[in-house]
Amino acid sequence: MTSHLWFHEVGQHHFGIQIRVRRTLCHVQSPYQEIMLLETEGMGRMMILDGCVMLTERDEFLYHEMLAHPAVCSHPDPKRVLVIGGGDGGTVRELLRYPEIESIDLVELDEQVVRLSQEFLPEISAGLTDPRVTMHFRDGVVFLQERTNTYDIIFIDSTDPVGPAAGLIAQEFFANCKRALRGQGIAVMQSESPFVHAKEIKQIHHNLKPVFPNPQLYLSPMLSYPSGWWSFTMVSEKFDARRDFVEERCHRVSKQLEYYNPAIHQSAFTLPNFVQRMLNEPQNA
Amino acid sequence: MTSHLWFHEVGQHHFGIQIRVRRTLCHVQSPYQEIMLLETEGMGRMMILDGCVMLTERDEFLYHEMLAHPAVCSHPDPKRVLVIGGGDGGTVRELLRYPEIESIDLVELDEQVVRLSQEFLPEISAGLTDPRVTMHFRDGVVFLQERTNTYDIIFIDSTDPVGPAAGLIAQEFFANCKRALRGQGIAVMQSESPFVHAKEIKQIHHNLKPVFPNPQLYLSPMLSYPSGWWSFTMVSEKFDARRDFVEERCHRVSKQLEYYNPAIHQSAFTLPNFVQRMLNEPQNA
Repeated sequence: MTSHLWFHEVGQHHFGIQIRVRRTLCHVQSPYQEIMLLETEGMGRMMILDGCVMLTERDEFLYHEMLAHPAVCSHPDPKRVLVIGGGDGGTVRELLRYPEIESIDLVELDEQVVRLSQEFLPEISAGLTDPRVTMHFRDGVVFLQERTNTYDIIFIDSTDPVGPAAGLIAQEFFANCKRALRGQGIAVMQSESPFVHAKEIKQIHHNLKPVFPNPQLYLSPMLSYPSGWWSFTMVSEKFDARRDFVEERCHRVSKQLEYYNPAIHQSAFTLPNFVQRMLNEPQNA
Repeated sequence: MTSHLWFHEVGQHHFGIQIRVRRTLCHVQSPYQEIMLLETEGMGRMMILDGCVMLTERDEFLYHEMLAHPAVCSHPDPKRVLVIGGGDGGTVRELLRYPEIESIDLVELDEQVVRLSQEFLPEISAGLTDPRVTMHFRDGVVFLQERTNTYDIIFIDSTDPVGPAAGLIAQEFFANCKRALRGQGIAVMQSESPFVHAKEIKQIHHNLKPVFPNPQLYLSPMLSYPSGWWSFTMVSEKFDARRDFVEERCHRVSKQLEYYNPAIHQSAFTLPNFVQRMLNEPQNA
């Protein structure tokens, strides 16, 4: 084949990634967003929502391992968990590696994301039919308002905090997370790139702090996301990711993994100078 | 302005970065390579050699801090150092932060890289005229053959190990590094991306091990290089980056820096599972 098809993601930053594409598998408009599945050269299959890469088969292990495992390995007894977003099933796949976890509620606004993942990304989405998983096709913000004292860990596996996902970084949403947790559990969220989303990270931490005074940012490479480097933020009234680290559990699960291990758990929370300074700046600096 | 000019770097991996460009500052063919300097939108000025991004003003701190500081902060008494390549001056700028360092030899094959950096990247190259610095416009491979028992640390600040730089990853070159070091000092080199250059990393470690049995790989994000994540390799017959870490020196220099600090020194050497497995595989796996 001599034709060259390229996907480009640029954003507002005059900087972007480009991935060579073999063919389009699916391109639809759901009630909520534009969904595109592409087969790439070298990165496997790729899901794009509203023009933003959500995952590629080649590097999704980074995002899903680093969203799921640090929180599970910072909680003494994680039995009941909630995933908001994450309709591709990657986070659920990681959580199912733990026999300790008895039930997983997945709340995905857009049922089509789940159905298309099941059709085109079977290795990522296979866990969604596991008997421990219950799927709810609803708005995560509303779903959470109805829960009190229910979950040990809440995973916020959202798209960028604009449009449909903007409510997932509001202070009110974080207060609802706190109420929905039992035993002063843990919430963890993807929190954008420290290189290109300083404004969004500061907004998230500004909204978190009245509810959870000590948010813990951690970092990971992320090949197919803008800048190639990503942040997550873990919060809890009780548990500290380093002090309460359950090394035996981490050691056990990491044998199945590509990225995460006990040393990575500790080092991911190490912040470069410019990130420390960013978090200490006033919100609008 | 409504015209859109873009620089694309793709490589052989069907995956690349794109950076929006305001204007071309300089585009010449030297005796050794094609040199291009562009003024970008959002990334500052950018230097490109033979189609590969060498640096942007926005993120060069990552590469230069992480090539220079971990080795300096792992040596008890770094007085005399050598930089091979690095004609832009960024590594020298970082080394000049240490009053302990008494002399720096810079060996750059292509004098035009130095001259164009001095013209277009004055903040990066300013240190090249410091009295502690001696510039040699020569082939680093040949230069090193003539040195014995001379340097405390050797920095190999090369382009990708193909074409003019291929000799910088040969086993013979590493043996010459060992001979040129005094007091069983340290050599450190950029060693490509763990995501897209597994073959090159394994080749480098394969060639290193007969000379330096315990190479230490470390990692850093690198916005404008392929995959956004980069590796370096430090070697020494005597010093270990973690055991011999000079925390006071690191703490002092890190106040001037954007990325590197004592916790980063330790965590950068933490390797994800897939990188550990890559380094344990046979060279041609």
